[in-house]
Amino acid sequence: MTNGMPPPPLNNISIILVGTRTPANIGATARCMMNMGMKRLVLVNPPQDKNNDASKLAAGADEILEKAVVAASLADAITGQHLVVGTSRHPGRLRKNIRTPHDAAEAIVPLLAKNSVAVVFGNEVNGLDMRDLSLCHEIIAIPSSPSFPSLNLSHAVMVVAYEFFCAVAAGSRPSAAKLASADELEDFYRHLQETLLAIGFLEQGHPERIMFSLRQMFGRSRLEGRDVKILRGILSSVERTRMNR
Amino acid sequence: MTNGMPPPPLNNISIILVGTRTPANIGATARCMMNMGMKRLVLVNPPQDKNNDASKLAAGADEILEKAVVAASLADAITGQHLVVGTSRHPGRLRKNIRTPHDAAEAIVPLLAKNSVAVVFGNEVNGLDMRDLSLCHEIIAIPSSPSFPSLNLSHAVMVVAYEFFCAVAAGSRPSAAKLASADELEDFYRHLQETLLAIGFLEQGHPERIMFSLRQMFGRSRLEGRDVKILRGILSSVERTRMNR
Repeated sequence: MTNGMPPPPLNNISIILVGTRTPANIGATARCMMNMGMKRLVLVNPPQDKNNDASKLAAGADEILEKAVVAASLADAITGQHLVVGTSRHPGRLRKNIRTPHDAAEAIVPLLAKNSVAVVFGNEVNGLDMRDLSLCHEIIAIPSSPSFPSLNLSHAVMVVAYEFFCAVAAGSRPSAAKLASADELEDFYRHLQETLLAIGFLEQGHPERIMFSLRQMFGRSRLEGRDVKILRGILSSVERTRMNR
Repeated sequence: MTNGMPPPPLNNISIILVGTRTPANIGATARCMMNMGMKRLVLVNPPQDKNNDASKLAAGADEILEKAVVAASLADAITGQHLVVGTSRHPGRLRKNIRTPHDAAEAIVPLLAKNSVAVVFGNEVNGLDMRDLSLCHEIIAIPSSPSFPSLNLSHAVMVVAYEFFCAVAAGSRPSAAKLASADELEDFYRHLQETLLAIGFLEQGHPERIMFSLRQMFGRSRLEGRDVKILRGILSSVERTRMNR
């Protein structure tokens, strides 16, 4: 944008594709993004020949492909992002209160004024694995027919991008909240896990399942930096209590 | 559906593709339809080699391709339909009260119980021409970026099919999440405050301010009964750690 206009909120959305196998889907995703006013594409472990078919399918959205950021892991890709939204095809495996793209977009768009938001899509065959989903602060699933639920990757991107575009167009009110960043959250989760292991709430061997539930719980609550400080203060008090015994 | 259940309303929707040029888009459309619980595809003047790439892109939705009806003109294709909805990429050229897919789906879904509805998409380059648009009873346009408005054909089908699917689902959507009750929450907050006082995180005199922040934090996270159990389990572990010192 020019002339001192504030950048449109959609500029604060990144689309992150993890382990995409078919270059055509990357191109089709770039086109969806252009259609819906988004610019920033991040590719985690893209296929080697990504620029071949991709550019054909981009149909003029090459600008997005050329500027796409490549990252080695999702953890790298989300550094500095404030809100990381994962997409899942199998909501049944996970918690029940996963949101639809519509509800998520309505809730998240007001945050775009002051926060960067990443929406993460897994590969064509398996979607996001549990490790990557656990890095997401909240999870959305696209409603679909139980007998044929699996959308093409770029179609999934289309639906989600469309919902964000519509929510922005509907003129949701900007929110003043400045969320904690993904790195601050990861530090907090590490601290939480250490403390829960130390007090014997988590078993040494298999903390993942409960940690996943806790991540979802805190993820939905849109923690600000101040919230994270309070929570870590509590953990430090617990630690001190333990050490003094 | 079996056992005398009424057929789901999505069975009463036909997708009509007019003059599609790329077989892959027909296959991708079939997949979208399966994803969104639709069955009836009508092809007006399809390309001759339609079954080649199409079936590859259908990714298992071949059933829809095999049963697709071929028609020589849109006028033929809409025979017997009660409501014909056209899609346009260029709403500016047309009347102002074109609806979004969302608004159209909300308005049309109640009609599906007793009426057949066709949604019509033009070819990849020009969309529907004025003659075909004039056969449509109402016209919808997908909101998109003015600087890059043209969606891939199957992406356009996806968005429209998704909106119809969601509107049908909204008609009978029980919320999957069973939230913790207000009393369970209050018990949890009481437990939390006691524990935080016991470990010296909260000052005896004025716990209200921090407790308010914590209530807001957990309140936003829409806790279920199971979440509250996990959190109270953590508090009990903290208590035990403290008593054992």
